[in-house]
Order: sequence, then structure tokens, then C-alpha cells
Amino acid sequence: MTAPRAATTDVEALTANQRFYEAFSSAKFEQMNALWARHVPVTCLHPGAAALVGRTAVMESWRALFLGGPPFELQSHDAVVSVIGEVAVVVCYEAASEESSHLVATNVFVREEGEWRLVHHQAGPLSSRRTPARSVSKLVN
Amino acid sequence: MTAPRAATTDVEALTANQRFYEAFSSAKFEQMNALWARHVPVTCLHPGAAALVGRTAVMESWRALFLGGPPFELQSHDAVVSVIGEVAVVVCYEAASEESSHLVATNVFVREEGEWRLVHHQAGPLSSRRTPARSVSKLVN
Repeated sequence: MTAPRAATTDVEALTANQRFYEAFSSAKFEQMNALWARHVPVTCLHPGAAALVGRTAVMESWRALFLGGPPFELQSHDAVVSVIGEVAVVVCYEAASEESSHLVATNVFVREEGEWRLVHHQAGPLSSRRTPARSVSKLVN
Repeated sequence: MTAPRAATTDVEALTANQRFYEAFSSAKFEQMNALWARHVPVTCLHPGAAALVGRTAVMESWRALFLGGPPFELQSHDAVVSVIGEVAVVVCYEAASEESSHLVATNVFVREEGEWRLVHHQAGPLSSRRTPARSVSKLVN
């Protein structure tokens, strides 16, 4: 018996989301570069910063961030995903290493060439830190 | 001569984005309610707050926010849009009335029954206020 397609798709999108945080935490530019879409426009909103529009600007920001090595370890918690056709919207909390979450993020993915790739990322601060409830979750509305 | 379909679609999504800020500024709950998707799960990240998952939680937050009348006027500036099939990702700055922008936002829309409806909203603070460059813009990557 195979898992329903919807569930499989959700897991694939959440796995791509997890890879984003692994690329960030290891400061691996090529891994990060591979995660972003190539066939649709991309945008990125780093915490507090102005909007980055277009692949060149977004990837330059990651290259600059990774120049001095890993900025810090960043973990994803309590992710929920909504898959709409070839697009997946993931919402998750972000925590530095063992700490409680201090940011909340939107990660939008598109399926390109069989892979879920990022088209948009926004992270913003939480007013109060949050203890993770679970590592991964699916969206049930 | 008609406009190319892609351009028309972009304008329609940006118009829906504009309606979101009109609903917010006028505190019209029914207008806000009509703007959110009915057939896919929705999520909302108000500035600093924990994630709201599901239509009931999201609409309850708007109802509570609008209880005392319009919270404040909120304008959208420098919006860029990326349309991917039936999904549109809009990034824009948010400004209270005549002030410069103090927030930056992600608004994700899905086309349902011929209308662009919100599936996700996140707004977060900018580290420094930003003077609007233009009222509306399309994404060119």
C-alpha cells in the first residue's frame, strides 16, 4: 500500500523546507543556490531588510551572508504546509540552535523539474520567544 | 488590441492585494472575509504574533482586530507580483496613512471561482522606515 499522493507531496515540500535550513546552517552556497527556482521570479525578505527581487539579488544576499562561514545554526519547528497544485506554502518557526524560536517564516515553493524549489522566503521576529511544539506537522484545515 | 494574458493576470492579483488593504483600513469584516480562500487551507502571520492556521483562526483574528473600528489606515506600496499558475505571490511594503513604510509583507493568493483570494499573509517590521518608490509595480526578473 502506498501513501496517498497528497500526503507524499506534503512530505516532499516539508523536506525541501528542511533542506533550506540545513543549507543556511552549514552556509553552503551551492546547496542554497540549488534550492531556489530557476524558471519563475524569486523574492526574499530577510528579517528587517528591504525586499530582494530577482534571483541575482537574492543569491547575492546568501553569498554575502555565508562569506564568513555559517552565520548561526537555524532550525525549523512546527512547520505546516499547504500544497496548491505546483506551489507549496510552508509556515514555520525558526530557532537558533538549542534556543526557543525567535522568528516565524513563510517559505513558498514551486515544483520545477520534479523538485520543490523556493520562490519566496520571509522571516520576521516574534514578539515573544516560543517553545517548539513538534518538529514537523502537516496542515489540516 | 487586448493586453497579454500574463499582464492582465498580474494586474488582477495586484488589485486583489489592494482590496486587502482597503478592507483592513475600513475594518470591513465581510469584505475581508470574502477576500480569503474557501477551498484551500489558509494561514496568517500578524506582526510579532504566533502563526494562525486555518480559516476559523484567521478570520477570528480579523474580527477581533476590527471590533473597535478601523485599527489604522494601512497602505500598500511598491508591490511586486509573481504569478505561478493559479497562485500569485505578492510582496509589498505597508505604510500607515501618510507615513513612510514600517512593515514589509507577503500576500499569497489563489484563483478560486475566477477570483484571486488570499491563502497566506505575513507582515513583519522593517529595521528602518522606507519611503515609497511607486504605488504599484510588476515583477520583472
